Amino acid sequence: MTSPSSAAPVTHQRADAALIDTLRGIVGAENVLTEPVDIEPYAFDGTAAIKQRPACVVFPRDRSLVAPCVHAVTSAGVPLVTRGSGTGLSGGSVPLDGAVTLGLNHLDQILEVDTANLTIRVEPGVITMRVDEEAAKHGLFYPPDPGSQKISTIGGNVAENSGGLRGLKYGVTRDYVMGMRVVLASGEEVWLGNQCVKDVAGYNLKDLFIGSEGTLGVITEVLLKLLPRPAARKTMVATFATIESAAQAVSDIIARKIVPCTVEFLDQMTIRCVEDYAKLGLPTDAAALLLLESDGHPVVVEEESAAMHQALTDNGATDVQTAQTEAEAEKLRTARRAAFSALARVSPTTILEDVTVPRSELAGMVRFCAECAERHQLRIGTFGHMGDGNLHPTFLTDERNEDEMRRVHEALGEIVTETLRRGGTITGEHGVGLAKKPFLRQQLGDASYDLLGKVKRALDPQGLLNPGKVFD
Amino acid sequence: MTSPSSAAPVTHQRADAALIDTLRGIVGAENVLTEPVDIEPYAFDGTAAIKQRPACVVFPRDRSLVAPCVHAVTSAGVPLVTRGSGTGLSGGSVPLDGAVTLGLNHLDQILEVDTANLTIRVEPGVITMRVDEEAAKHGLFYPPDPGSQKISTIGGNVAENSGGLRGLKYGVTRDYVMGMRVVLASGEEVWLGNQCVKDVAGYNLKDLFIGSEGTLGVITEVLLKLLPRPAARKTMVATFATIESAAQAVSDIIARKIVPCTVEFLDQMTIRCVEDYAKLGLPTDAAALLLLESDGHPVVVEEESAAMHQALTDNGATDVQTAQTEAEAEKLRTARRAAFSALARVSPTTILEDVTVPRSELAGMVRFCAECAERHQLRIGTFGHMGDGNLHPTFLTDERNEDEMRRVHEALGEIVTETLRRGGTITGEHGVGLAKKPFLRQQLGDASYDLLGKVKRALDPQGLLNPGKVFD
Repeated sequence: MTSPSSAAPVTHQRADAALIDTLRGIVGAENVLTEPVDIEPYAFDGTAAIKQRPACVVFPRDRSLVAPCVHAVTSAGVPLVTRGSGTGLSGGSVPLDGAVTLGLNHLDQILEVDTANLTIRVEPGVITMRVDEEAAKHGLFYPPDPGSQKISTIGGNVAENSGGLRGLKYGVTRDYVMGMRVVLASGEEVWLGNQCVKDVAGYNLKDLFIGSEGTLGVITEVLLKLLPRPAARKTMVATFATIESAAQAVSDIIARKIVPCTVEFLDQMTIRCVEDYAKLGLPTDAAALLLLESDGHPVVVEEESAAMHQALTDNGATDVQTAQTEAEAEKLRTARRAAFSALARVSPTTILEDVTVPRSELAGMVRFCAECAERHQLRIGTFGHMGDGNLHPTFLTDERNEDEMRRVHEALGEIVTETLRRGGTITGEHGVGLAKKPFLRQQLGDASYDLLGKVKRALDPQGLLNPGKVFD
Repeated sequence: MTSPSSAAPVTHQRADAALIDTLRGIVGAENVLTEPVDIEPYAFDGTAAIKQRPACVVFPRDRSLVAPCVHAVTSAGVPLVTRGSGTGLSGGSVPLDGAVTLGLNHLDQILEVDTANLTIRVEPGVITMRVDEEAAKHGLFYPPDPGSQKISTIGGNVAENSGGLRGLKYGVTRDYVMGMRVVLASGEEVWLGNQCVKDVAGYNLKDLFIGSEGTLGVITEVLLKLLPRPAARKTMVATFATIESAAQAVSDIIARKIVPCTVEFLDQMTIRCVEDYAKLGLPTDAAALLLLESDGHPVVVEEESAAMHQALTDNGATDVQTAQTEAEAEKLRTARRAAFSALARVSPTTILEDVTVPRSELAGMVRFCAECAERHQLRIGTFGHMGDGNLHPTFLTDERNEDEMRRVHEALGEIVTETLRRGGTITGEHGVGLAKKPFLRQQLGDASYDLLGKVKRALDPQGLLNPGKVFD
């Protein structure tokens, strides 16, 4: 089903020797990889079972070189895929066969910390966690903390609009991007946004580019908003005999007008895998585990923590542990931070879902995933961000087992349909990329889906920026 | 200067008798105004000296009637201008001669308050202040408070991305819009966004439509995020002998890692006009007056207020008054809320500017406006949101005085140029509309400006939604 206004499919060129020579001339021969053995690590990202080889990988060492690279590639009619650390979980930075991959991880300068205006300006290859570390030196705070924050780049975070564990209280990457420099498909470079807290001059193209997964332009500079650093933080873990009682405890906390910094959730399968992996002494008979954090003024944190503790015990928590020291807090956080690694080691193939529902639908959704696993005789461990309804049902499977993979795909389809029935989204923080592309029209509906293509064709008429991602 | 891809100017039709009959058939004859005397109030909005008559004004009484109206008008090739309460300050809802004006102020139902997910869903014609009043019934809070909040509609706020007095701490309208239903130029109706805290499925079209000033679609439903209501609030007013010391006090407050809810500013001209108007006992010899508010947990408010008081006196505040009761606080707020009315009564024509600079540039910018007034022998009163760098230099003039108006326009041009030199924006919260259109290319630059046209043509190829606004 395509809209009448769809353009005919564009035929892309493969990068040839002449283009590769041109790119060598721009960035220096030592910064262009073409040998299969060198290119191999750039053929996939953090997404399972998706792999395609680019013709070459190009690493500009100065951000002024990005625009000439983009211009050279698009002028030749060749697709361009931008990449940071390649930690994406939807295949957004997986190249196309014969395309040019533009690696921005060497553009890793902190350009300016402005303590008067509470902003930081960075190059796209800066590692996410370093942004917060730089902010901390000035008593400031960059809240977004995606799971891959120690490896992922800020450019990738902006391109994917990454989330993290603090979404409920602090929002996601988008909420901190005040401006960005972008190279368009034409090779022109533009600034979108600025350092003003308020700005309504013209359409908000900045927010259109955030989360556009490299399909509208290449980010060469990012201006981020910072907050005062919270003075105190308190961490607690609670276990429950049922998922419903855990969900009810979270609802009660919100009903008490408390917005915790973090409310994370592990189901029984995940608790058992984490315990098996990290030996933290978790109760493996618990149906649900919650990790909760309050941050802010010390008095507020004390009051909030006490009220949260009360809500947890009122709802039948079987155990509540509050960290007394930062070391203890770190240990409690480990249970959640280790979830994906702990699940991933159990089986040859791990398929990590990212469905999100309104918070009030979360208990029902977790229950649905468990029933779905049983019905299809699959193993699904579910963990995620209970505070913001963002769930990661994780299929523990084996891609060599054809029959099981068929059942996995049936179950995936059912989970997506149930998510949408509950007013949810197919992806809360991982992006559409290649992995979620088959489900996007189902979520948006025809009219809304067709708008995406119209915007894409307006800004990248040749369809050369990360083609085939998000939608066809 | 136009981009090579610019479409040829489109010739618009005027609404004829057949179209008006069709519209009467859709909404009922009693909801279509065509008589000049009835139409007159819809020929202008809150912007000085801009006036054009529509062919008719149509008031759907049910939101399901908006799509058929839009379809009828655009099918006839006639321009459509959407309007709420008409309080806009950039001419965004001023009609075109012969166009159809769609008045949405009767669509004023609160559709749902969802206390589990902290959201409110409303029709576009709901008065802004009513959103917060409904939220307050549930202990919740809708922070955006544009100056016109008692009259303006939420649909207009979303279309203009309205700001207000709490931007520094709480952001603007955009930060609270989770979803919206929009009728496109084709008459199709789409939902953009949803009730999920995190959602990265496809391009973020919701944020593209917010602030698009009715040029991309007609809003028929809005889903807004709410916050827990702050338990306490403290209000204080300080006066200063120089603008620089007031600005330094604000910088010191931010440097102490305090983000007040409100930091408002009046210059001497504004103080004198307010005192003359409202007789509040303000010191008319002060160069600057600050209104500051802290809100949140009572303990935090106490501490913040004490630290703010200290920063004010450290920077030579000539007087600091802290409200002890809500009545006293309301009296202090009156000085700021009355600023525009107080200035407007001084002269026949009031031209309200809306330039915004990074906070650190604010003192210099206020000084520039004062010098500019002196150089051109004009009266400019400046007030605004010091916390977020959003200034409202207000020209007290007379449009019948040709020579003075020439000088006003020279001064306006100089203020815009200086604003952009300081990294600012031509409009912080009023929108571009007709008033700021001449300056938009200067701010954005050619490449970025041309993107707006590309997006507009992709979504409204006939150019019928609010044509001539924002850009040509």
